[in-house]
Amino acid sequence: MRFSKFYAPTTKEAPKDATLPSHIFLVRGGFVEQNGAGLYSFLPLGKIMLDKISNVVRDEMNKAGALEVSFSVVTNADLWRDSGRFSVFGKELLRFKDRKENDFVISPTNEESAVAMVKNKVNSYKQLPLHLYQINTKFRDEARPRFGILRGREFVMKDGYSFHANADDLRREFDLMEATYSKIFTRLGLNFRAVEADSGAIGGSGSKEFMVLTKNGEDDILCCDSCKYAANVEAARRQPKAPYGDVPEAEPFKFHTPNTKTIKAVSELFRVSEFYTIKAVIKKAIYADNSEIIVFFVRGDDELEDTKAQNACGALELVDASEDEIKNAGIVAGFCGPVGLNAKFFIDKELKDNTQMICGANEIDYHFIGVSVSSFKDDRFKDLVAVKSGDKCPNCGGNLELSKGIEVGHIFQLGDKYSSAMNATFLDENGKAKPFMMGCYGIGVSRLIAVMIEASHDEKGCVWQKQCAPFDAMIIISNLKDEEGVKFANELYQNAINSGLNVMIDDRNERFGVKINDYELLGYPYAIVVGKSLNEGNVELITRAGLNKELIKASDALKVLKERLC
Amino acid sequence: MRFSKFYAPTTKEAPKDATLPSHIFLVRGGFVEQNGAGLYSFLPLGKIMLDKISNVVRDEMNKAGALEVSFSVVTNADLWRDSGRFSVFGKELLRFKDRKENDFVISPTNEESAVAMVKNKVNSYKQLPLHLYQINTKFRDEARPRFGILRGREFVMKDGYSFHANADDLRREFDLMEATYSKIFTRLGLNFRAVEADSGAIGGSGSKEFMVLTKNGEDDILCCDSCKYAANVEAARRQPKAPYGDVPEAEPFKFHTPNTKTIKAVSELFRVSEFYTIKAVIKKAIYADNSEIIVFFVRGDDELEDTKAQNACGALELVDASEDEIKNAGIVAGFCGPVGLNAKFFIDKELKDNTQMICGANEIDYHFIGVSVSSFKDDRFKDLVAVKSGDKCPNCGGNLELSKGIEVGHIFQLGDKYSSAMNATFLDENGKAKPFMMGCYGIGVSRLIAVMIEASHDEKGCVWQKQCAPFDAMIIISNLKDEEGVKFANELYQNAINSGLNVMIDDRNERFGVKINDYELLGYPYAIVVGKSLNEGNVELITRAGLNKELIKASDALKVLKERLC
Repeated sequence: MRFSKFYAPTTKEAPKDATLPSHIFLVRGGFVEQNGAGLYSFLPLGKIMLDKISNVVRDEMNKAGALEVSFSVVTNADLWRDSGRFSVFGKELLRFKDRKENDFVISPTNEESAVAMVKNKVNSYKQLPLHLYQINTKFRDEARPRFGILRGREFVMKDGYSFHANADDLRREFDLMEATYSKIFTRLGLNFRAVEADSGAIGGSGSKEFMVLTKNGEDDILCCDSCKYAANVEAARRQPKAPYGDVPEAEPFKFHTPNTKTIKAVSELFRVSEFYTIKAVIKKAIYADNSEIIVFFVRGDDELEDTKAQNACGALELVDASEDEIKNAGIVAGFCGPVGLNAKFFIDKELKDNTQMICGANEIDYHFIGVSVSSFKDDRFKDLVAVKSGDKCPNCGGNLELSKGIEVGHIFQLGDKYSSAMNATFLDENGKAKPFMMGCYGIGVSRLIAVMIEASHDEKGCVWQKQCAPFDAMIIISNLKDEEGVKFANELYQNAINSGLNVMIDDRNERFGVKINDYELLGYPYAIVVGKSLNEGNVELITRAGLNKELIKASDALKVLKERLC
Repeated sequence: MRFSKFYAPTTKEAPKDATLPSHIFLVRGGFVEQNGAGLYSFLPLGKIMLDKISNVVRDEMNKAGALEVSFSVVTNADLWRDSGRFSVFGKELLRFKDRKENDFVISPTNEESAVAMVKNKVNSYKQLPLHLYQINTKFRDEARPRFGILRGREFVMKDGYSFHANADDLRREFDLMEATYSKIFTRLGLNFRAVEADSGAIGGSGSKEFMVLTKNGEDDILCCDSCKYAANVEAARRQPKAPYGDVPEAEPFKFHTPNTKTIKAVSELFRVSEFYTIKAVIKKAIYADNSEIIVFFVRGDDELEDTKAQNACGALELVDASEDEIKNAGIVAGFCGPVGLNAKFFIDKELKDNTQMICGANEIDYHFIGVSVSSFKDDRFKDLVAVKSGDKCPNCGGNLELSKGIEVGHIFQLGDKYSSAMNATFLDENGKAKPFMMGCYGIGVSRLIAVMIEASHDEKGCVWQKQCAPFDAMIIISNLKDEEGVKFANELYQNAINSGLNVMIDDRNERFGVKINDYELLGYPYAIVVGKSLNEGNVELITRAGLNKELIKASDALKVLKERLC
């Protein structure tokens, strides 16, 4: 491609609201352009990256036996009513009425369409398994679209839906997809982990997220330093914490503790380690029709994990409770404990059967000591804690370490949630109608462009990996008036194209400084600068990662490029 | 591809509302599936055809120097306000509000997005020309979606937008696109014509439609039998009609013509040919804010062409006027003529300066004779007639013939309509700011799948052309219990794949009759039936077009397939 015939309108101005390097460089490099809150159009460079990523995804999905389809972007609301999601899906689901006042949605995901595509068409277990996927536009009306295409409202996603006769076969496909996704992200040159994940609102019996490890990640993930265990903090488990400090042996007693409202103060007053204290976290749980104040108890040195807490109580959302709301619920802030509490509460499961604990007495300026956390009903105990760096791996006891990650894929074992709701069945070996067992599998295709930059950039711009870059290399003509240079560069360009390299030649009538700045911003893996040193038979090879520069023989330029790129 | 691992759920049931073969066969063959009024999802076979067509379009567009982009499907309403179309576009434009009550549209076309992509980025004539295109989902909220994917609401379209420094360069690109489109439709194996078209609401200085000639076409097109002239009836021109019959010489006179309300009656009463009579067609013109009764006068033996009439008066729509509306407008139905008429009217330009004409006298039971159509103002004369079969070519005088066509592409010279409205300018050679000259160019990608079937099918199903078929051939195993046959068919399949053919093997455990019916319905260009004749070293070659069957040597099967397909 000739830069003079291409359209990559680079600029020095970053978007005002941009904080992430990927957002800044994608806009400055003319890859994408904003066209409204969370809405982006893809310029030629952005479209090239969309296609490159899509092609890798498609290739591996096809090799795994999945079949590509295309669901309509606008979907009939009736399908969403059948599954029950039309009313329960939040405001992210963009609902609209057409000219005839009928309801439609712009697809944020396509479980319903996928079920509709097999319902009454796949009738026998003999036609299973079946895996249908698409790479298509999605829309989610995010409350706070941000970070450029990393969290936009319109985005391109690969979403696949598999149908099985039983749970074993679903599990087989789930494992196949884990392997397939690993191949895809490896081919894209990414440093990623498959982590245990919260299945949340999608439901089902198990899910894994694929996380790319980057400094600016939105998600906290915990990885074991000695085995393969890794999990999103929302779903991370650990070995129960070992006791530390002297056991504060005492008979049960209500103790006067004036103004002792924090764990730190309690621990100091009683001279016990925080291990023996119980912390109350008070939240307001929002449900579809009502809300409720709920207390979550965790060990004094632990923190509440919000998603776990939300799953514990089945709320749509948890928000902080106001002082008045806490008071009206009959809760004494600062002195709240599970013994004799007159409000809904849950206790972290690690506290079960702990003895000699100290907790609030639900009375101003009083705590209980010598408490046994044993006589509560089993369903009060839930996994509630936020696992931290240094906690022990639940599998091997190794150390867990906290990293930041960005989600790029998520695979779910859905089970029969959607097929049952939509009454989509097949006849099994015994001629009995059963709902399909389903899996669903997503990859954020457009988001991956940003993730690849988050994972690899410097202060000057993108640093694309050679596995998947918009172009393999840029051939830069330093000076268009240098006839020898122009001739050599054009020949090199033509030879590179002929030998299968995907190169761009910067043949624009621009100053050399502009061309170098643009090269560094666009970030193709290599550049060949054809300049004055051509007189001595040399050109400059720039390696974008590290911006290393070396003089090489001009006659070797193509050979060296090919070596570096393979 | 193995049919046993594929998903083409064929059925004998045609959709209830289906009248066109393409609609019936696309649904019966499991290419597409309806998911709401005018909404279709594409199953694997449909997706394969979408990709095949897209790839041909993309290849030729890239060769012509256009650059592929991707505009967001959801577009900010502000862009549409800037161009002025947010308010004037009809109900086909799907407008919706997001969770923050801001206005958006689902793109029916992307002139605004294209202008936004170059505005303030292309600043100099040196950066021109530039042609950006995408292949993307569109949505038009059609009042009456019908004919399956031929007139759906959601569809896939290739839309391109070019930017130029002057009208000459736009004209050059327009001609290049005419040539490019011709290559595309030729590669798709279609019998098409590029015809002169009405530019209508899009505006601009010239446009051409690409029409595929098919029996079930929605459009009337006129093609010259001796030169290349072809036009949509909406824009068709002709040589002025030659007079016939005796000239009814008479001095101007108002004649009593009781109950003589039709052209036929007038012609019989006066014993003159219809050539010398004037017909009044009375319409109600709908504008954005009001409506008006307008009379269109054409020669007695001509018909009014609605689109031409609409363009003449600039109305958004023309509808029939009721008896009351006609009366209230002061028009005497059956006796209406241009002389002394107290209503808005236009006259067909072929009538200009005609003499010895007969027309209504705007008085019950009276006509004027001996009328000269000469003293009216020039702007009353417009091209209003519907050109018919047998009319004479405006270029060479040959005979025009009427055909039915389906529009598959449309190219426009837009001029500066959108760039001016959106204030998108560049600096010309003299440093003066000028609005871009623009062209726009569309191809109905998803509709082409249906068009290809309309153009080539029989009563049993699709008959794909070998240029662009979902698969080149089907290898049919007659009987899965025939081990020799299964072995031979699988070897042939593998060899065909290895030599670059795109074949499907029907290895399903189904009766032979089912397989043959499915083959005829899906309609790949060739089939090889591996059956009993293999004992004598033969297989059957079926040519789908004509369903011709021939025994060929089994050992020659691959060679013959390759010969037929090249």
